[in-house]
Amino acid sequence: MSRYDKYFLMKEEDVAAYVEEKLQLFPRNAKVECKEIGDGNLNYVFRVKDADTGKSIIVKQAGESLRISAEMKLSTDRGRIEADILKIQGSLAPGLVPEVYLYDGVMCAMVMQDMVGHTMMRTGLINHETYPLFAEHISTFLVKSLLLTTDVMMDHKKKKELVKSFINPDLCEISEDLVYTEPFVDYNQRNNVFPVNSEFVKKELYDDKTLHLEAAKCKFAFMNNAQSLIHGDLHTGSIFINQEHTYIFDPEFAFYGPMGYDIGNIIANLFFAWCNGDASIEDKAEKEKFCGWVLDTIECIVDKFIAKFKVEFQEKAVERMAKVAGFADWYLAGVLADTAAAAGFESIRRTVGMANVKDITSITDEQRRARAERIIITLAKDYIMNREKFTDGTAYRKAIAAAISEY
Amino acid sequence: MSRYDKYFLMKEEDVAAYVEEKLQLFPRNAKVECKEIGDGNLNYVFRVKDADTGKSIIVKQAGESLRISAEMKLSTDRGRIEADILKIQGSLAPGLVPEVYLYDGVMCAMVMQDMVGHTMMRTGLINHETYPLFAEHISTFLVKSLLLTTDVMMDHKKKKELVKSFINPDLCEISEDLVYTEPFVDYNQRNNVFPVNSEFVKKELYDDKTLHLEAAKCKFAFMNNAQSLIHGDLHTGSIFINQEHTYIFDPEFAFYGPMGYDIGNIIANLFFAWCNGDASIEDKAEKEKFCGWVLDTIECIVDKFIAKFKVEFQEKAVERMAKVAGFADWYLAGVLADTAAAAGFESIRRTVGMANVKDITSITDEQRRARAERIIITLAKDYIMNREKFTDGTAYRKAIAAAISEY
Repeated sequence: MSRYDKYFLMKEEDVAAYVEEKLQLFPRNAKVECKEIGDGNLNYVFRVKDADTGKSIIVKQAGESLRISAEMKLSTDRGRIEADILKIQGSLAPGLVPEVYLYDGVMCAMVMQDMVGHTMMRTGLINHETYPLFAEHISTFLVKSLLLTTDVMMDHKKKKELVKSFINPDLCEISEDLVYTEPFVDYNQRNNVFPVNSEFVKKELYDDKTLHLEAAKCKFAFMNNAQSLIHGDLHTGSIFINQEHTYIFDPEFAFYGPMGYDIGNIIANLFFAWCNGDASIEDKAEKEKFCGWVLDTIECIVDKFIAKFKVEFQEKAVERMAKVAGFADWYLAGVLADTAAAAGFESIRRTVGMANVKDITSITDEQRRARAERIIITLAKDYIMNREKFTDGTAYRKAIAAAISEY
Repeated sequence: MSRYDKYFLMKEEDVAAYVEEKLQLFPRNAKVECKEIGDGNLNYVFRVKDADTGKSIIVKQAGESLRISAEMKLSTDRGRIEADILKIQGSLAPGLVPEVYLYDGVMCAMVMQDMVGHTMMRTGLINHETYPLFAEHISTFLVKSLLLTTDVMMDHKKKKELVKSFINPDLCEISEDLVYTEPFVDYNQRNNVFPVNSEFVKKELYDDKTLHLEAAKCKFAFMNNAQSLIHGDLHTGSIFINQEHTYIFDPEFAFYGPMGYDIGNIIANLFFAWCNGDASIEDKAEKEKFCGWVLDTIECIVDKFIAKFKVEFQEKAVERMAKVAGFADWYLAGVLADTAAAAGFESIRRTVGMANVKDITSITDEQRRARAERIIITLAKDYIMNREKFTDGTAYRKAIAAAISEY
């Protein structure tokens, strides 16, 4: 009998003993410290550290409700989903996700690598750090984790077992509501609209019926298109990074969905960083350096994704009908259109929806923040309404320039 | 302990005792007879009958391999899938599917209503029977069983649990191979091509690369688009019918897929009946009557489906974004394009693929059969290549007339 035979929500003082009982990662007489470091909405994250050696690991436990709202209950099965997909992604894209040491289905807790020496990418970007290897790393991660889990590449029966194992009703519902519904129809009154822009948001989002129709189409694709095992929440807060390495983590929203969703999320969140830099950096050369790097990186991610996707498809497609002339191009065109649309929805929901991003909310000057949000929403609508035109990195650069020039 | 606590394949002599032990449907001293009446490829079907009262029931047991090939193993889980979907369809479309009395997961056996006084529809059609209520019944069945299981109509979390429960890898693989691959790329050498047409088939199917590209696109939609809980094998051999009633059964291929697949299968199989009537009925008036009824029925099914679909959507849609202006029309247009394409694939695979249909193979005159097959393939390619134009029953009537006029 162990006190961990039945689920309870651990506190800092429980976690070191838990790790000792489960894994014996530290010497018997080690001075082990534990600190809760989570800042997400869903889980409790503890760093357990040997004070003598400095060695540390992370324990992440899934709670039974949202941290920001005890009323929003969530299946703790997301912990299992997260541990399982980290193992899959780790095998497909080695070195780009943290290592999982243990998943405990009773306590809904995962013991994993502590990504020491890395910063959460959103924090780094808000400090206007640049990451020269990011485009290379993330494009590899996207192609490997996404294309290799499709019916193009996988035995269809094994893929169907994965689809089944990653059915994720609770977390998908969050995205269905917060990304594809509430930013357009604020029926839950949960949107956070910056007051200066309330008229603009009403006109551009709440009253635009043609936009609602495209949102509805894309919502159904998000719900029904079991294309690829996607991360499902791939923003810059789900990435730990430094000048040499990139780790993608927090995949608890994972399910079989359209792969463009992940790629679009990255693009949207990078542009939030551009907005922050543009509004906050006073030194002109510094601003040009940071903002220029962001735009180069967006362009580069799209182009590198396309190039690596084509090579991978050419080399590894196993589905006979996927090899017929013209199919790879048609399939990629669909992925790229989905990507642009997803970038649009993420842009909008992070600007006016329930979960804002610090890149924007930390812009202290009201007018600059209002301008940034207008640029984001204008660009986002272009992404969604004209999603077929976003066929390469240049198209993104042009659309961004056009949206900026309007304000 | 019972001898039915462990799976074994029952013989006629086992089944009466099995029913007695499980259900006590017959009086204790009844003279119960049992006969194997299955003629499908996958299962064993027994009729159990009380000789005195004439009351009968059906026992259907799933075998562990195809009856036509012991090498092709199949998960017996399809029996559970079949029993579960019959219950769901029975609640959504009352009176249009047989009643299930028992599903036994150990023996993979289902005890169900015997549809006495009904004929397998394919048999009836080959005898050139007409069924005036069929269009009315099947259009209701299609709208109720298909639209009501989509995200338009269902709570999304409950729908995801159904998707999970109906993941059906083995039977989907059969359709992926036999419907969407082998008729175009005969890599398994399992196609049954009528020798008179071998050159025609080579030119029109094996060598047509633009057709292969559309087949590839539709194969991916079949594999990935978890739109609706479809029957998955809705041909005229899966229907028992008479002048008053229609029963749809044998849904063991069920899974969450594109709803057009079911509708297209019905249309294709009705046209096989037209071909049989056209080639076999010598009396001109009789031929006109039967073949005219078939064409009217195809047109009528499409138009009734559209009308009922619109009413149902209008009255019962629960998904907020599905109610935005223009969405229902866009969604229906997608279903209708999928329908035409599916009619095309079913037409082709039943003509040249592994599983032919008796409507065509029973045409004794070689030239007439060859002509029928050429009409079917020409029509099928029109369905697939121009699937967006099949927006009502008239479009089908015109396309059929055009294909017939070529030969």
